[in-house]
Amino acid sequence: MTEFEIIARYFARRSRTAVLGVGDDCALVRARKGMVLALSTDMLLSGRHFLPDADPQQLGHKSLAVNLSDLAAMGAEPRWALLAIALPKADGKWIRAFARGFFRLARRFGTELIGGDTTKGPLTISITVIGELPQRLALRRDAACAGDDIWLSGATGEAALGLAHLRGRVRLGGAARKACLARLHEPEPRVKLGLALRGVARSAIDVSDGLLADLGHVAKASRVAAELRWEDIPRARPIASCPDEGLAKECLYAGGDDYELVFTAPRAARARVEAAGRKAGVRVTAIGAMVRGKPGVRVRDSLGRTVSIPRAGFDHFA
Amino acid sequence: MTEFEIIARYFARRSRTAVLGVGDDCALVRARKGMVLALSTDMLLSGRHFLPDADPQQLGHKSLAVNLSDLAAMGAEPRWALLAIALPKADGKWIRAFARGFFRLARRFGTELIGGDTTKGPLTISITVIGELPQRLALRRDAACAGDDIWLSGATGEAALGLAHLRGRVRLGGAARKACLARLHEPEPRVKLGLALRGVARSAIDVSDGLLADLGHVAKASRVAAELRWEDIPRARPIASCPDEGLAKECLYAGGDDYELVFTAPRAARARVEAAGRKAGVRVTAIGAMVRGKPGVRVRDSLGRTVSIPRAGFDHFA
Repeated sequence: MTEFEIIARYFARRSRTAVLGVGDDCALVRARKGMVLALSTDMLLSGRHFLPDADPQQLGHKSLAVNLSDLAAMGAEPRWALLAIALPKADGKWIRAFARGFFRLARRFGTELIGGDTTKGPLTISITVIGELPQRLALRRDAACAGDDIWLSGATGEAALGLAHLRGRVRLGGAARKACLARLHEPEPRVKLGLALRGVARSAIDVSDGLLADLGHVAKASRVAAELRWEDIPRARPIASCPDEGLAKECLYAGGDDYELVFTAPRAARARVEAAGRKAGVRVTAIGAMVRGKPGVRVRDSLGRTVSIPRAGFDHFA
Repeated sequence: MTEFEIIARYFARRSRTAVLGVGDDCALVRARKGMVLALSTDMLLSGRHFLPDADPQQLGHKSLAVNLSDLAAMGAEPRWALLAIALPKADGKWIRAFARGFFRLARRFGTELIGGDTTKGPLTISITVIGELPQRLALRRDAACAGDDIWLSGATGEAALGLAHLRGRVRLGGAARKACLARLHEPEPRVKLGLALRGVARSAIDVSDGLLADLGHVAKASRVAAELRWEDIPRARPIASCPDEGLAKECLYAGGDDYELVFTAPRAARARVEAAGRKAGVRVTAIGAMVRGKPGVRVRDSLGRTVSIPRAGFDHFA
C-alpha cells in the first residue's frame, strides 16, 4: 500500500459541509454566518500518551476525543478535523480499526475529516480540530470572576487510576477496573455540555493535566484564586473505594486524561448550570468558588483547614 | 523548564489578527469578508524528513515553509499557524533557534502563531496553517483542462541533489553545494506567486514529492494527460552541470522538496502568467501541455519520442 492508497482506502470520505475536503493541497471551509472558528491541535506519541500496544480502535477514538474536548471547553461546536499520522508500517488491519474508532466518534459529533498527512515513522498522531461558535459566547480561561462558583462535570481520577492499575501501582477489581480503563482509553468529550454552557458559564477548561493544574490555568489567566471544598468534590466509586487513599487523592486532584470540564459561573446562574447538565446528560457539581487573592488553587475542608495535595499536575518536561 | 515555560518563553506572541491567540483551549479566528479559509497540515519526523542533527533555525524555517507551500499551491494568503512539537528535551538554545527560523519566515508572510501543543518525545513537528482566499479563485487540482499550458516556477531538482550530496551519492563543488543545500534546508514557499496566479492559472500543486508525481496528481484529479517537453524543462546550474547525468535526471523529475509550483493555465493567459511571475519575482516556464487521454504524465523530446524517467516520485510506504 502506498500512502495515497492508505488515504484513499481508509480516510478519504466525501465532505458534505466543507467547500473542499480531502485530496487537494488544502481543505477549504467557511464558518456559518455570525460564527468564528475555534482551532486546536494535540499531538499523541506512542509510549507517552498511549501504550505501544494500545488497541487501535480505542486509539482512534481517544486521539479525536482529546481534541474535541478542547472545543468543548471553549463552547465550540465541532465541525472538521485534520489528521496527521506517522505509522511504522502500512498495516491495513490496524489502520482500519483506528479509522473505525476515529470515524465513529467523529460521526457522533458531526465532525468531518477534511485533510491530513500520512507518513512513515514511530506511531504519532497529531490532530487539528475546527469548530465554530458565536464570538461573544466563548468560554475563555481569562473570564472567571471572584464570586463565581466553580463547577465540575462528572468526576475526575478514574483515568489516572486506570493507568496506575496498568502500571501495577494498584490492583483494581472487576467493575472498578472496567470503569477506569474505559475512562482512560475511550474518554467522552463533554461537547454537549460545552454547548449547553454557552451564555451560562463564564470560563471553562478541560481536565487533561489534572483538576488542580487545569483550574490553576483558569485562576492565573483570570487573576483570581480558586478555593475548592474538599467534601464537595465528587468521587467516582473506584476512587471512593480505592484501598490506597493517597493514590486515590492524587488521581482525584492531579490525575489527567479524564476530559471533564471544570468551569465557573455566577452564583445567580446555578439553576441554569444544573439545567445545562441535565440537557447534556452529565452530572455537574459545585465544588468551590473563585475568590479575590493571589492566583492559585487551594482545597479546604469543612473546618476551613487547607488540605495538602500530593502532586501538582502533569508536565511533560518535569 | 516546564512545557508552559517553553511556550511562554519561546512561542507565545500576542496576535493582532486572531480573535484569540495562544493560551486558551482553542484559538479563535474569523475570515475576512467574502473569504473562505484554507487549511493544511504536515508532519515532519527526525530521520525521515530531516537529519537528526539538522540546524534548528533552518528546521524552524523549513517546517513552516512546507506548510506555507500548500497554501501557495491553493492561491491562499497565509494568516495563522498552529505548531505541535515533540522535543527530546527542554534545550533552550535549540528551541530559541528553532523559534527564530520559524518566526522569521512567519513574519515575512504575515503568519501568526496562534496555538499548538508541546510535548516530550522524539523530535517531531506537526504544523497546521490557515490561509484565506475567495472561493472561486482557488487553484484546485481538479481544474486543469486539455489544452492548458503546464508551467513551472523556478526549477526542480536542486533540493534532491543536495540530499544526494549529503548521502555521498555525488560530490558537489562550492557554489553548487551551497545552492543545493540552501534549497534543501531553507526552501522558499511560492506564496506571492500563488497569490498572483489567482484568476490566471486554473490548477496548481506544489512540488514536494517530485515533478512527475505531483503533476500526476493534477492529471488524475482533472482526468487529463500531461505532456512535458524535455527540452523546455528548466535546469538549474547544479543540475545542468552535474557529472552524474542519471542522478541529475532523477532529481529533476522525481526529486521532492523543492516546493516550486507546477500549474496550468489556458494558452490565452500566457502574458498574464508571465506578468504574475514578474510580480512574484520568480521565473515561470511553460514546460508542456495538458492533453486529452488517460491521466498520467509523459515526457517527450523535440522529435516526439518518449523520454524514460528513472523513478516515479516519493512514497513513504514504497
